[in-house]
Amino acid sequence: MGSMLEVSEVHTVEVGYDEFCGALAARDLKPLWRMARQLMPETPLPTTRPWLWKWDQVLPLAKRAGEIVTIERGGDRRVLAFANPGLNGLPYTSTTLWGAIQYLGPGENAPAHRHTPSAVRFVMTGHGVSTTVDGDECEMEPGDLILTPNWNWHDHNNRGDEPMVWFDGLDLPLVSSLEAVFFENHPRDRQAVEGRNLSQQRFAAVGLREAGAESPPAHSPLLRYRWTETDRALASLHRLRGGLAVSLEFVNPLTGGPAVATFGNEMHRLFPGGRTPTRRKTGSSVYVVFRGAGRTVVDGMEMRWGAGDVFVTPSWSAVDHEAFQVSDLFAITDAPVLRALHLYREEETGEPQPITGTFDPGR
Amino acid sequence: MGSMLEVSEVHTVEVGYDEFCGALAARDLKPLWRMARQLMPETPLPTTRPWLWKWDQVLPLAKRAGEIVTIERGGDRRVLAFANPGLNGLPYTSTTLWGAIQYLGPGENAPAHRHTPSAVRFVMTGHGVSTTVDGDECEMEPGDLILTPNWNWHDHNNRGDEPMVWFDGLDLPLVSSLEAVFFENHPRDRQAVEGRNLSQQRFAAVGLREAGAESPPAHSPLLRYRWTETDRALASLHRLRGGLAVSLEFVNPLTGGPAVATFGNEMHRLFPGGRTPTRRKTGSSVYVVFRGAGRTVVDGMEMRWGAGDVFVTPSWSAVDHEAFQVSDLFAITDAPVLRALHLYREEETGEPQPITGTFDPGR
Amino acid sequence: MGSMLEVSEVHTVEVGYDEFCGALAARDLKPLWRMARQLMPETPLPTTRPWLWKWDQVLPLAKRAGEIVTIERGGDRRVLAFANPGLNGLPYTSTTLWGAIQYLGPGENAPAHRHTPSAVRFVMTGHGVSTTVDGDECEMEPGDLILTPNWNWHDHNNRGDEPMVWFDGLDLPLVSSLEAVFFENHPRDRQAVEGRNLSQQRFAAVGLREAGAESPPAHSPLLRYRWTETDRALASLHRLRGGLAVSLEFVNPLTGGPAVATFGNEMHRLFPGGRTPTRRKTGSSVYVVFRGAGRTVVDGMEMRWGAGDVFVTPSWSAVDHEAFQVSDLFAITDAPVLRALHLYREEETGEPQPITGTFDPGR
Amino acid sequence: MGSMLEVSEVHTVEVGYDEFCGALAARDLKPLWRMARQLMPETPLPTTRPWLWKWDQVLPLAKRAGEIVTIERGGDRRVLAFANPGLNGLPYTSTTLWGAIQYLGPGENAPAHRHTPSAVRFVMTGHGVSTTVDGDECEMEPGDLILTPNWNWHDHNNRGDEPMVWFDGLDLPLVSSLEAVFFENHPRDRQAVEGRNLSQQRFAAVGLREAGAESPPAHSPLLRYRWTETDRALASLHRLRGGLAVSLEFVNPLTGGPAVATFGNEMHRLFPGGRTPTRRKTGSSVYVVFRGAGRTVVDGMEMRWGAGDVFVTPSWSAVDHEAFQVSDLFAITDAPVLRALHLYREEETGEPQPITGTFDPGR
Repeated sequence: MGSMLEVSEVHTVEVGYDEFCGALAARDLKPLWRMARQLMPETPLPTTRPWLWKWDQVLPLAKRAGEIVTIERGGDRRVLAFANPGLNGLPYTSTTLWGAIQYLGPGENAPAHRHTPSAVRFVMTGHGVSTTVDGDECEMEPGDLILTPNWNWHDHNNRGDEPMVWFDGLDLPLVSSLEAVFFENHPRDRQAVEGRNLSQQRFAAVGLREAGAESPPAHSPLLRYRWTETDRALASLHRLRGGLAVSLEFVNPLTGGPAVATFGNEMHRLFPGGRTPTRRKTGSSVYVVFRGAGRTVVDGMEMRWGAGDVFVTPSWSAVDHEAFQVSDLFAITDAPVLRALHLYREEETGEPQPITGTFDPGR
Repeated sequence: MGSMLEVSEVHTVEVGYDEFCGALAARDLKPLWRMARQLMPETPLPTTRPWLWKWDQVLPLAKRAGEIVTIERGGDRRVLAFANPGLNGLPYTSTTLWGAIQYLGPGENAPAHRHTPSAVRFVMTGHGVSTTVDGDECEMEPGDLILTPNWNWHDHNNRGDEPMVWFDGLDLPLVSSLEAVFFENHPRDRQAVEGRNLSQQRFAAVGLREAGAESPPAHSPLLRYRWTETDRALASLHRLRGGLAVSLEFVNPLTGGPAVATFGNEMHRLFPGGRTPTRRKTGSSVYVVFRGAGRTVVDGMEMRWGAGDVFVTPSWSAVDHEAFQVSDLFAITDAPVLRALHLYREEETGEPQPITGTFDPGR
Repeated sequence: MGSMLEVSEVHTVEVGYDEFCGALAARDLKPLWRMARQLMPETPLPTTRPWLWKWDQVLPLAKRAGEIVTIERGGDRRVLAFANPGLNGLPYTSTTLWGAIQYLGPGENAPAHRHTPSAVRFVMTGHGVSTTVDGDECEMEPGDLILTPNWNWHDHNNRGDEPMVWFDGLDLPLVSSLEAVFFENHPRDRQAVEGRNLSQQRFAAVGLREAGAESPPAHSPLLRYRWTETDRALASLHRLRGGLAVSLEFVNPLTGGPAVATFGNEMHRLFPGGRTPTRRKTGSSVYVVFRGAGRTVVDGMEMRWGAGDVFVTPSWSAVDHEAFQVSDLFAITDAPVLRALHLYREEETGEPQPITGTFDPGR
Repeated sequence: MGSMLEVSEVHTVEVGYDEFCGALAARDLKPLWRMARQLMPETPLPTTRPWLWKWDQVLPLAKRAGEIVTIERGGDRRVLAFANPGLNGLPYTSTTLWGAIQYLGPGENAPAHRHTPSAVRFVMTGHGVSTTVDGDECEMEPGDLILTPNWNWHDHNNRGDEPMVWFDGLDLPLVSSLEAVFFENHPRDRQAVEGRNLSQQRFAAVGLREAGAESPPAHSPLLRYRWTETDRALASLHRLRGGLAVSLEFVNPLTGGPAVATFGNEMHRLFPGGRTPTRRKTGSSVYVVFRGAGRTVVDGMEMRWGAGDVFVTPSWSAVDHEAFQVSDLFAITDAPVLRALHLYREEETGEPQPITGTFDPGR
């Protein structure tokens, strides 16, 4: 038996266009014909704006936060989020990505908790800190990438005598818009530690895994990617490929897939000698300059960067890079999500894009 | 060589807390410690609200739109979106899903175009209409589900003498927040037609596919799911399983995965006899009552529904259903996205939830 | 520390070539240089030979087996294997596939057991028989395909008043060469029956599956593929594609992959009008003529077939078919194994192959 | 329309049982009821026998082959296959695996060719040799594993002044029984070399891959696994896990799956202190002792081994190991094939198995 729904018997009320529009609003209905073009543009119209944060402006504020944001004021989350001005005051760097700087002073401890948004920490400066992830105490050195994936317990501990500053990358905006954020505090400030750098010991060489059928987890079981290794891989790839840039993805060694299911983690080494080809891709990226200096052009706007700077490139923007000296940029991107949903596109535009302005971070 | 970033040499400015907060804002930085709880709640705090749209309120407006929204006014997109009141005026039904009612009068044609958001059409009433999808003219009858996946050309044509009303389901909010919407008009109003119901002919029986290695597409190559088949499968499954409800997913016959990569499509048959167990799951659903009558309780609020009504259940809300007569509900859901990103959770709450209020659609 | 293995200190014995070869044999060593060409031919040198078994020669023997092979003589396995003459007396139809004819008289029961080789039954003639597979009593009618996959309990029961004859297809040669055959008798002759044609009821329509995340099994959960459905799908596909032949694969509706992991099951409908293009592929196939008449040319040798005949085509042989009337051929093939191991190749040879002889089944 | 096959009209010939069996043979039919138990044993009845080849017996023969098997006699394939005595004279080590020792003298070159069977080379002793694989010149040092996968061009070149001896592992018996062997000689003795150790340079660190979506190949793109890395990974894993043994699998860094699709490659480090738990698994393994000394018990038979020895364990045999000193064993196994086909099983038997005899390699 089919439905009993019938149109013919319905009587419409004879109202004019304006009154009709009012009736729609009263019934929580929106007319598509008034907004079709805006909802479905020919190419993406990102609200994310290209933006740049300068290390020499951010760091003093982070340090000051370390002084005045005491524990009573929530100092255990002493995090400054890079808030994209296009996102209506939301503390997000793009519509899908959260970038922030976190400052942990000597002797401080960020208490253990877990959440469904996944996080990574890219260490910018400092020593003597470790993050414990589900019992595995991962040491942190500059350039290291530490994963604290979806629902893993984690706490950060500074046992050294200097502060550490790292970049926090999260998928929080995405997981928030999916309405799937869960959070839980650990019963204790610090988890019990099973051992130090355990995951590194499991994955000590390329192409070798412990024998036995293990069903691969959603997120990489390798939790610490050491800078010494990353540096070596960049150098090796550059010897092999040459060119203006080489790029690495951090992957799950059990699957070859993204280290974290919900965003990509990349390391780019740029060499002086000119601008890279201009590319567009769906999805945004947040870059962290680990060392070097150069510029990135985004839809004609030049952003000049140096060590410690952070910038964001929106979806489908035309992007090229130029290093003034050998430069290393860490980046997070939502490309794995777009790929998983079959929404990823990229293209190389033929000509170098004209530069039409320069981003003024001083505003 | 590591980074040159150093904290020690930085001089902070001696400002007070309020001044400090102002300095942050000036540099597009947001302090996490002031909003951690709200950004990371213990369980999802959806902005999507449970809501219900009544057929007898929507249909007259849709019909009236058919009368006064002429072609000049954009009548080729005569679509009324179910706009969730929790989403700040956005024309979305949930943070990830778009639901709408589309009205196509006799002799009318909605011109050919394509877009990266995927769409499905669930036919509520009418005859004599077809949708051509990449050259395959799919006939539409009540209860049929027609797919127009990501970047497939499609146009709708009413060759009959009565209007058709269907439910539009799209992933537009998700694809918008991923900043990955592309749109293109076809050079002609109507595509060339290669044949009628071609995809159905390719997939004429369960468990049989054309021989030869075809790499499975992201979206189902079966474009029309006929109501007669769906009805038969519901009846068959109910004979097998019994109980208060049986549920089917529309899948890609080449992979067994979701028919569309970015949202799920389901058909539920409910039987009188009591309330179903209360469940929570991450992700929202939009239900379309095809026939029958009953009620759904969402976080204690009862929504009474009949044929043609549409309602939405937010992420992690407690939900149970009760049919007053045998009822068929079509639903779209973002569960496949949450599963792909390893963010899906569900649980059955032990007790039936208390009913604390009733949704008033008359407001 | 590396190995201590050293070549330099070894003293060889001064023996001549023949003596040396003898010394190798004494130590269970074989010299590759004497057999390299034979072990590694330029293209496959199958030991499987193209062969044909005629229904009018096989059926009387099967029937006679039904008369004289009593239960005491093992009549519960009244199976005649099509033994390829190229395989040194092994009861296998090709190096990977087992084909046989099984005869079950009225009132007879083939007792319940299970084994790791997977089996399928393609019904050639008879009524009133069913096979119970893990509690699901599957009715058998001519043209039906019944699966009894790896380690599923199964028993066959003839409750009718006529004999049934079916074709048995198994991966036994493959599983034997992998040394992975396990077998177990059920404690009782007949399993308890949970219901009749249960799997069919679960999968009653194309592209619809029961909602809820079920991890797909290695083998199809659909156990009975009815001839009425297969016939309909063949007719539908022919309307869509036209041509001399249409081919269907039996697949797992939860994955779109092969119904059985270890061999493929196909149905081919051939139409009069000429010879199909000549093709080669790695892997062998065993064909069962369900109805019709025609011929197949294999490496130049013509095999003329009619209803009930069975023939085998070896790996990489040149094969074309010609139907003298509309013909339906069931086939099993090891192609899924070759695909899974990345060893599958196929090619179409340009010209029709010359016919150089005709297979004489009378020998 | 169904089939026209009918049983009722067939007339059987009234023959006795012996005459009937003769008639079957004449028609290339084999009666299952006379061999069911042997074809379908309760647990695998491998024809592969446990066997051991001693380095001090094999090496002198390999060296002698180097002296008398000149190029005219096929010295470019100076390979001695470990021929399992259970396999009727076939030059195979098990029903699926080929193991051999290859000897390449100073200045010698094994000319370039390719074949669908995949091969690996595990270097036992020697220096100054390289294998070029599709243009990538892979250096070979003791303990290194070099892949020459399915259809990759390869040639071996000894530019040093000492011989090299390596273990060859192939899937040749499997690919032969699948009748899928293809072979081709390269037009030149030596391929052009694009570079040295290129694949190593691409994969220079764990968990890092070149950015950009590359569809993963069937076989690992990493072609050389250096012993220094393997040794380090074994040591690291032992620090982490402790115990009598640690085991590594060589995997494809782009997928985490087996380095070669058709057989597994493993490295085991055993420590003195007792016998490992007794295990059975489907599928055979061939072990190569790289260093150390110990014993392995297979179905009660003890095989004592030292550096350079090779032994094979059949499917479903009870196996345990004991090291008398720290020992490293390379192994190949068909487990990935059995897993891909859903035929893999393993179990730990409770008690240590009794030792009932000792293998006498002197025979």
